[in-house]
Amino acid sequence: MSRGVWFPSLGLLAWLCCLTLGPVEGGKVLVVPVDGSHWLSMKILVKELSERGHEILTLVPETSMLIHGSESFKTEVYPVPFTKAELDGKFNELRDGVFLKPPKVTDLFINLQRLVNFTTVQVTACESLLNNQPLMGRLREGGFDVLLTDPFLPCGSVLAHIFNIPAVYFLRGLPCEMDLKANQVPSPRSYIPVAFSGNTDIMTFPQRVKNMLMSFLESYMCRMIYAHFDDLARKYIGDDMTYSKLLSNGAIWLLRYDFTFEWPRPLLPNMVFIGGINCGKKSPLPADLQEFVDGSGDDGFIVFTLGSLVSSMPMEKAKQFVDAFRQIPQRVVWRYTGDLPKDLPKNVRLMKWLPQNDLLAHPKVRAFITHGGTHGIYEGICHAVPMLMFPLFGDQGDNVHRMVARGVAVKLGIYDVTTESLLAGLNTIIHDKSYKENIVRLSEIHLDRPVPPLDLAVFWTEFVIRHKGAEHLRVAAHDLNWIQYHSLDVIGILILIIITFLWMTLKCCLFCTRKCCGRGTPKKKKE
Amino acid sequence: MSRGVWFPSLGLLAWLCCLTLGPVEGGKVLVVPVDGSHWLSMKILVKELSERGHEILTLVPETSMLIHGSESFKTEVYPVPFTKAELDGKFNELRDGVFLKPPKVTDLFINLQRLVNFTTVQVTACESLLNNQPLMGRLREGGFDVLLTDPFLPCGSVLAHIFNIPAVYFLRGLPCEMDLKANQVPSPRSYIPVAFSGNTDIMTFPQRVKNMLMSFLESYMCRMIYAHFDDLARKYIGDDMTYSKLLSNGAIWLLRYDFTFEWPRPLLPNMVFIGGINCGKKSPLPADLQEFVDGSGDDGFIVFTLGSLVSSMPMEKAKQFVDAFRQIPQRVVWRYTGDLPKDLPKNVRLMKWLPQNDLLAHPKVRAFITHGGTHGIYEGICHAVPMLMFPLFGDQGDNVHRMVARGVAVKLGIYDVTTESLLAGLNTIIHDKSYKENIVRLSEIHLDRPVPPLDLAVFWTEFVIRHKGAEHLRVAAHDLNWIQYHSLDVIGILILIIITFLWMTLKCCLFCTRKCCGRGTPKKKKE
Repeated sequence: MSRGVWFPSLGLLAWLCCLTLGPVEGGKVLVVPVDGSHWLSMKILVKELSERGHEILTLVPETSMLIHGSESFKTEVYPVPFTKAELDGKFNELRDGVFLKPPKVTDLFINLQRLVNFTTVQVTACESLLNNQPLMGRLREGGFDVLLTDPFLPCGSVLAHIFNIPAVYFLRGLPCEMDLKANQVPSPRSYIPVAFSGNTDIMTFPQRVKNMLMSFLESYMCRMIYAHFDDLARKYIGDDMTYSKLLSNGAIWLLRYDFTFEWPRPLLPNMVFIGGINCGKKSPLPADLQEFVDGSGDDGFIVFTLGSLVSSMPMEKAKQFVDAFRQIPQRVVWRYTGDLPKDLPKNVRLMKWLPQNDLLAHPKVRAFITHGGTHGIYEGICHAVPMLMFPLFGDQGDNVHRMVARGVAVKLGIYDVTTESLLAGLNTIIHDKSYKENIVRLSEIHLDRPVPPLDLAVFWTEFVIRHKGAEHLRVAAHDLNWIQYHSLDVIGILILIIITFLWMTLKCCLFCTRKCCGRGTPKKKKE
Repeated sequence: MSRGVWFPSLGLLAWLCCLTLGPVEGGKVLVVPVDGSHWLSMKILVKELSERGHEILTLVPETSMLIHGSESFKTEVYPVPFTKAELDGKFNELRDGVFLKPPKVTDLFINLQRLVNFTTVQVTACESLLNNQPLMGRLREGGFDVLLTDPFLPCGSVLAHIFNIPAVYFLRGLPCEMDLKANQVPSPRSYIPVAFSGNTDIMTFPQRVKNMLMSFLESYMCRMIYAHFDDLARKYIGDDMTYSKLLSNGAIWLLRYDFTFEWPRPLLPNMVFIGGINCGKKSPLPADLQEFVDGSGDDGFIVFTLGSLVSSMPMEKAKQFVDAFRQIPQRVVWRYTGDLPKDLPKNVRLMKWLPQNDLLAHPKVRAFITHGGTHGIYEGICHAVPMLMFPLFGDQGDNVHRMVARGVAVKLGIYDVTTESLLAGLNTIIHDKSYKENIVRLSEIHLDRPVPPLDLAVFWTEFVIRHKGAEHLRVAAHDLNWIQYHSLDVIGILILIIITFLWMTLKCCLFCTRKCCGRGTPKKKKE
């Protein structure tokens, strides 16, 4: 059986006809985005919703990196109490040192502190929005049908609760699995690897012990990361509110998940998988870039970028890359804005920002050098490009680990990379056929879905608009506390009943024995 | 925002184009069905697969109730060691007594024994297939790409394993949740009601205690029900095989589930929801029936059937119904083959078999009197018809309980039904507007899905053909035993380490104390 693709049958039309409902009417959508790469994929959905006739209002902090106005949707800019330089400083903190220091276990805590610093600044931005009475008044009167937000930051969920609008979440996942915890998704620690554990879904006994210990650590980290979010929720909603409780009100979770990349795991009905939403649409390349990659001959070309946050590196490190590129027959398109040796080889083209998805879709691309962000990984999977990966921080270590485990990538450390290891890595992913074969197989499975992810995201957002939520998909677990959820109270009472029963049986036996002995003793006494 | 429906956007076309894969080629599908109403919905998928160019071979036991040959697909009839009369006898046993005896707690065990008797006979049919060497030889050489079966009976899974063909399961659910257990789906007992418990997903503390106790009972029942299946698996596959293990190999579980009917619950990625697959396609009514229901005026008509197994009842019981129907303005279409009083009112039309879905789709239908089988319920939901329900046996009690909890049905007992209670029930569901409003809301949500269930079932069956399974959706939990899955070994070792640590600390403290005291004692002695 050769591979094929599903074509919607006549049943689809029959189904649609039998509904006899009216056409989609435009809804009012309030968008509360998160800056950086988070916005890049959410923007795709926002634009699509706008094109489908929905009225969009996007709230944009006046100091932002990638969120700007657009012709396709309205934006409302609100003042925040920090400057672009301060914001950049916080972002820079996140990536600091990865090029110069060898990775250490303590990095986890340093990165955690940096993440908390970063989100704390963002929480102040949210406060200034919530305290902005004129704007809040206008939003309250806005009559929005749905609020679309990335719950990586809390402002969207707070607004949804205050304005009583159903929320659709758009995310890849939250630090320390807060998304899964808040949505009451079971995560058995015996086969669901904890972040940063270095485990896959198949673990030896020591790995499972490590996984369990890391899950305790994760709970501690959770408290640290979300302390400010909890404060915000309490301050603006009520004393008994926490961020987890707030998140649990989400009607639909649009997750940039796909099981060609994630380990298969338990789910809940309100989780919708839209992994790869960022590689659905292609645009033509700029003419000069098109010419450069078209002219790469049979050897093809390599795409090299370390993500939206990292576009430079120390000169010495960059030299290792340049020296390696000098020795390969492939051309290289490199997103780079830092300093470089003067004798840059002709096969290298530098760019300040590159059309990553469109380049990876080119038939002559041979390899993708990436930091292991999820956008790049999904684009690599979509277009079946083997990867050379340099995880830098955050979830990237786990992401890379997964792709290496699937035999579609080679991992190198950015701290100790050399020209030789680079050449060896590139040689492996380009010339060892198994990498290409594995990524082609992964790509075929990834693309073979009943509904493309963007259409699925649109469908469920519109579903929430049509039905004012998705209450029928919400599990009753949300009404239980931890003890009730795990039935510890029930188990406790059953054990108590059993113990009482055993104790009473024992007492009865003892009583009977005493009676028998009692009858005997007087006789003995008599004797 | 008025209700609407999703239209596939241009993104769908872009997605399909970007795949650049060939058209679907016909696969070879071996179908191992289960008789009775199970076959009615599976047949829809089998026919659709055949129409889409797949080569189908359906294995039919020579003694069967509803599985017959078809023009759309090939069948292979195999001999079985029982007659039609014996089979009917087993079916009759299942429904025996429901009209004449009040329901009792012990019915659970009686019905369990009857179910075991019924499936035991079916297991012998399977054995005669497996021992049929000429047929088995032909099947082995058949080069099938996928095996489609209903795992309510074990033969399909055994064949899939023996022939090493990926299996697609088509079912609503198995007794004692064997499907969920075998597929490693988490079912927290705190909000997932156990069958026959009478609970919903929201339980009080006593209800949760009952739920937990019932789950222990369920485990015992599981062992009874599947003992013969385990024997069969061991005999034909190997000593370490069980039915649960065999089932766990299923690539895709096509579940006749929808959360307008089921309580929301944890899922796994290889579960696909196709609830309502039986109401996607409508056919025109026979002319005389069309005339009868068209002529029912503003009062409309009622559809009355107690399922494919029950088409008669004791005369006295039937008289209660006839007397009630005599007093209502609605017409009644009744599937009935038993004895009746002679003066049948003119508003009642008897039929040996009725086109249930087509009747429920008629705009003049006002109510549906049903036993609460899942096919009828989904058809009732699809076409938004309030129900008067008489649960008879099996899962029907739980099904009815769910519809009553959703405010779309009234439940009556078939044992103690009277003309008065019937009239009151019909009056409620027809004239209390809330029933119609609730079922319309449920129907809108049920129909509002990104892909119609039949197309979804076809897609995933073809997916398994294209990719020779769906391994990427299979959780790693299948490789763990019960202790490992629940991390009891890990928790044990951690407790042991903590106890050892505490014990050593205590010992050290005691040692130090003794040292100190030891130094003191001689002094004292000296003194």
